[in-house]
Amino acid sequence: MIATSQKHWSGDVADLLRVGDGFVLADVDPRSTPGYEHDKHAAAEDLKAGAQQLDEFQERLFAQSRVDATDASVLLVLQAMDSAGKGGIIRHVVGSTDPQGIALAAFKKPTPEELEHDFLWRVEKRLPEPGLIGVFDRSHYEDVLIGRVRALAPAEEIERRYGAINDFEKRVVDSGTRIVKVMLHISRDEQKERLMERLDRPDKHWKYNPGDVDERELWPSYMAAYQTVFERTSTDQAPWYVVPANRKWYARLAVQHLLLEALESIDPHWPAATFDVAAEKARLAAS
Amino acid sequence: MIATSQKHWSGDVADLLRVGDGFVLADVDPRSTPGYEHDKHAAAEDLKAGAQQLDEFQERLFAQSRVDATDASVLLVLQAMDSAGKGGIIRHVVGSTDPQGIALAAFKKPTPEELEHDFLWRVEKRLPEPGLIGVFDRSHYEDVLIGRVRALAPAEEIERRYGAINDFEKRVVDSGTRIVKVMLHISRDEQKERLMERLDRPDKHWKYNPGDVDERELWPSYMAAYQTVFERTSTDQAPWYVVPANRKWYARLAVQHLLLEALESIDPHWPAATFDVAAEKARLAAS
Repeated sequence: MIATSQKHWSGDVADLLRVGDGFVLADVDPRSTPGYEHDKHAAAEDLKAGAQQLDEFQERLFAQSRVDATDASVLLVLQAMDSAGKGGIIRHVVGSTDPQGIALAAFKKPTPEELEHDFLWRVEKRLPEPGLIGVFDRSHYEDVLIGRVRALAPAEEIERRYGAINDFEKRVVDSGTRIVKVMLHISRDEQKERLMERLDRPDKHWKYNPGDVDERELWPSYMAAYQTVFERTSTDQAPWYVVPANRKWYARLAVQHLLLEALESIDPHWPAATFDVAAEKARLAAS
Repeated sequence: MIATSQKHWSGDVADLLRVGDGFVLADVDPRSTPGYEHDKHAAAEDLKAGAQQLDEFQERLFAQSRVDATDASVLLVLQAMDSAGKGGIIRHVVGSTDPQGIALAAFKKPTPEELEHDFLWRVEKRLPEPGLIGVFDRSHYEDVLIGRVRALAPAEEIERRYGAINDFEKRVVDSGTRIVKVMLHISRDEQKERLMERLDRPDKHWKYNPGDVDERELWPSYMAAYQTVFERTSTDQAPWYVVPANRKWYARLAVQHLLLEALESIDPHWPAATFDVAAEKARLAAS
């Protein structure tokens, strides 16, 4: 448990949500709030305090990178079924920090050019530079999720990808990037409610896609594909966190916590001056 | 004057700040607050109200682009002497909206690859896609500012660039992008104070660069280069706005206003559904 400004946790959220040996997705209750016994009002207070801490961590990390004092960066990987709240995380958690410190990459259906390359080609290009917090809205995991459910690649290729992902992520972590992999987990009923709300509200129609209902029909297949992802790619260097997300306020607070923890492990400090401060003061005063 | 949520303007800020015929940079008082007779407390209230309006405009614009209902985008070009407050604009004005709707590009010293191409090559690649608010932190104008002051290119090449910029911007505007060009204008004395503060505070040392003092020595040359930029490139389709910036609260409020005006001229609406809403409700209910 980190020395976080979020005051109301009663348990170690990272430990509670981390995917370890014997993890079973079907046993996770999407309505639960592991480690948090307070309500959304306390959570709003915690989220606000956490935003300040995140902002300071981010600026320190960015400052270090500007004077080449660090190779460190953070990469938040967001995966979820439609309407689970990825956008809300980006808006309300990531969006509370300076946009200059964020590198956001949304991975859509691959382009013809992207399809000509290995599935990691387009991902590699969007890794965060030192000093930044990268956010992947979907990711290389789509290639073993929809890729598997819709059989977009041969079975042996899908199989190969799990190992390729682990090798890739190990290299990324070794280069200084903390990877935080999050699956936002909602229930099938909750999704129906959220999609129905999009249909009920004209200002939400643009978020609705008829294909969402087709994907819904494949819910059990997706859950099985996620279970395999967790078994094959939740590693020591880049573990998965399954965040119950029926309650948006909980998911946001938990993801903010995981980001704070990643940044605390980097422990960024204001870098020392790379010039003679007294001499510069004299030069400036004379200018 | 737009129907803005910023309540305390007493004049048409866009008209007051726009560079027109006979504009003289030296006549602009960096401490002034054209069109605003209230103090920073009123400005804080206005900035907050404006942020909500900006957020809604941005989401509507983004929504339209998702269903191919618009080609429109906005491009904010920020130019200024060091420490004039570009970063604060990005953090406090742009940063109040959803990061998913922002495309931020910071133009540093050109790389060897960029130098092999025309000066607009790297700029073209960073233009905002439809639905986005693009922000240029420095821009192609560096190539006629530091480019001119430091004689980084032959005089006839610098001369050619003004026309090339106007042609380029006309094409960009014709393709649906509202360009808002802003110079944040501080006084030389104010810069000295701000740079001295960076030297006084260890948490600001990383923002200080000894080269800043060298550039300071060229202040009159930079002001002359800006004056020429304004005379040559403040066009009907993409006018310049010179924003007095000694008072940070004024500069932020004014730039937010200019963004609101650009978005209001687009007048984005929630797009109509591209599917049969009743039929989708039935499909979803049955799923």
